Amino acid sequence: MTAPRFAYDPMSEAAAHEVAQRLAFGPLLFQAVRLLASSGLLGALRSAADAGAAPEDLGAPGLSPYAVSLLLEAGHAAGVVAPHEGRYRITKVGLALLGDGAARVNVAFVHDVCYLGAHRLEDSLREARPAGLEALVAASSTATPPPATVYEALAHLPAAVRRSWFAFDHFYSDRAFPAALPRLLARSPRHLLDVGGNTGRFALLALAASPALRVTVADLPGQLAEAEAAFVAAGVGERTALAPVDLLDPHAALPKGADAVWMSQLLSCFSLRQATGILRRAREAVAPGGRVFVLDTPWDQQRTAVARLCLQATSVYFACIANGQSKMHGAAELRACIAEAGLTLEEEATGLGASHTLWICR
Amino acid sequence: MTAPRFAYDPMSEAAAHEVAQRLAFGPLLFQAVRLLASSGLLGALRSAADAGAAPEDLGAPGLSPYAVSLLLEAGHAAGVVAPHEGRYRITKVGLALLGDGAARVNVAFVHDVCYLGAHRLEDSLREARPAGLEALVAASSTATPPPATVYEALAHLPAAVRRSWFAFDHFYSDRAFPAALPRLLARSPRHLLDVGGNTGRFALLALAASPALRVTVADLPGQLAEAEAAFVAAGVGERTALAPVDLLDPHAALPKGADAVWMSQLLSCFSLRQATGILRRAREAVAPGGRVFVLDTPWDQQRTAVARLCLQATSVYFACIANGQSKMHGAAELRACIAEAGLTLEEEATGLGASHTLWICR
Repeated sequence: MTAPRFAYDPMSEAAAHEVAQRLAFGPLLFQAVRLLASSGLLGALRSAADAGAAPEDLGAPGLSPYAVSLLLEAGHAAGVVAPHEGRYRITKVGLALLGDGAARVNVAFVHDVCYLGAHRLEDSLREARPAGLEALVAASSTATPPPATVYEALAHLPAAVRRSWFAFDHFYSDRAFPAALPRLLARSPRHLLDVGGNTGRFALLALAASPALRVTVADLPGQLAEAEAAFVAAGVGERTALAPVDLLDPHAALPKGADAVWMSQLLSCFSLRQATGILRRAREAVAPGGRVFVLDTPWDQQRTAVARLCLQATSVYFACIANGQSKMHGAAELRACIAEAGLTLEEEATGLGASHTLWICR
Repeated sequence: MTAPRFAYDPMSEAAAHEVAQRLAFGPLLFQAVRLLASSGLLGALRSAADAGAAPEDLGAPGLSPYAVSLLLEAGHAAGVVAPHEGRYRITKVGLALLGDGAARVNVAFVHDVCYLGAHRLEDSLREARPAGLEALVAASSTATPPPATVYEALAHLPAAVRRSWFAFDHFYSDRAFPAALPRLLARSPRHLLDVGGNTGRFALLALAASPALRVTVADLPGQLAEAEAAFVAAGVGERTALAPVDLLDPHAALPKGADAVWMSQLLSCFSLRQATGILRRAREAVAPGGRVFVLDTPWDQQRTAVARLCLQATSVYFACIANGQSKMHGAAELRACIAEAGLTLEEEATGLGASHTLWICR
């Protein structure tokens, strides 16, 4: 007699059916939970604490009693509130949604940046382009022809979309930078090349922490303009240089001579083949004896399941909205790119900030 | 010393944060899981069973290795697949998604009918109209001015949307009708008025089971045309009559004289005030000694949490797409409507089909 198939998964059939239906109604539960939070209803229930509140005693500006009932019932389905003796109380999940900065940032990012475009995941993957970006760009009539990536589109997007995008981007990097910076400075670099340095956020930290350091930021011209303004405002303009470069162009070389080449949350924005090309150009650019530093978020080196699933789900954004060919890569994939680019891995530091790993290569 | 607040919920903080993030990324997980299933990748993993399959050995027409990896990793986040020794295996949740007819019907309904419009839940609730319906109707240029409800729009919607809508509607009613019909026939009705009889699905069952029964179907003209064709095709045309009526018009009376007035999955499509008005007109129409039968899906009379959450989540569809003012009502709400309409509740039968309750009133 053989063992029953699928016995490796101990989940009961009833529990599996419930999770399956939660996935099936995920978009509707998301919208209800988002509005429960943004309308203040969930906050009112947190304030009411153990006493809870009756639906008829809860209100929010512009929402009818019907709307309040509907949101509470959908919130019950989602597990953020629960009825008790004719009243509703907030659950631990509801408290987590309100109290967890990551959850708030993720909800806004998913709603404002990803939601509509994710409907076109299939087209995006079949055509290897961010087909969902059209849904975002449609709101702004100025960009013709349509941009090929979100990075080109960013400057043209509505303010609310930009705000949610940057809040998401910065939320993760802001927690990793303080943990990663000492490991860079321990190598006493004199000249840092920040590849894909975006608006100069990491460069500013490094310049402040190391008064003799010079920094060159390489990125698209739109991003460099913001970085330059930030450097001038911080009074460090004379220690910085700007190198406009489109990293998608495999022939675009990086400026040579820095003894530390840095790239943070950059390789997730490219396919593995493109990532290898960027790493190869970093190897060609770095000064003799210098190092290449790669800070990224491999989904398979996370301490918790929740950190892992957030990264894996974010990959859908890369496919539909960002560029149609990247994702949150795994550590083994990135190590293979490093080796293929002719670099030697010297140190791997995991668990920096919320989700980051730093690879130091020569 | 007082007890800590929120101690009524035993969930751990770590578990709550994970559920919160699953909600936050719900739309992205939904899209990935849907495509994993529709592309055949999930089915291939079910066939591979305990052996699982390596990502590089899995493929689907038109999907690159990158796309396959991304979908497997997002599916891991969603819990429908799990990695094991370099391969992926389907989980019990994945099996439930493939094997559960309700999950398949719900995924298609949410994607094709609800997804885009649910982005406008806030507008829908604030304006008491299905603001999300515009997203669906935009695909068909013929309907101007925009329809006020999905019922008016239905005939103009793309075929795929119509298919998913009817599959969802019929999936639930098809399971309830056989359980409810004997309770109707036990009252030996001679003439049945089917209010909101739609395409005649229940009427056909009743006509087949009771050879002397006559049926009048009251609904919008578009739906009646389909019902009439079905009656003629079944050879029961001479025992049927059609009564065009817009139930949203509070002055539109129902035809009088039937000794059984029947309404199935109808009152969820109206606000509680509208539902009361329909029940009052049913009371005025029913013959002396006759009965009014109300078959519906109260979210608070479900045997399982999963049945309850499916109904509560479906309320979001009613707000965004259907009409902007209805939801899956609770049993107490419907009983209050019945009483307010001047009807007396004679019998309440719960647990019919998957989710239904039958109220018999005089």
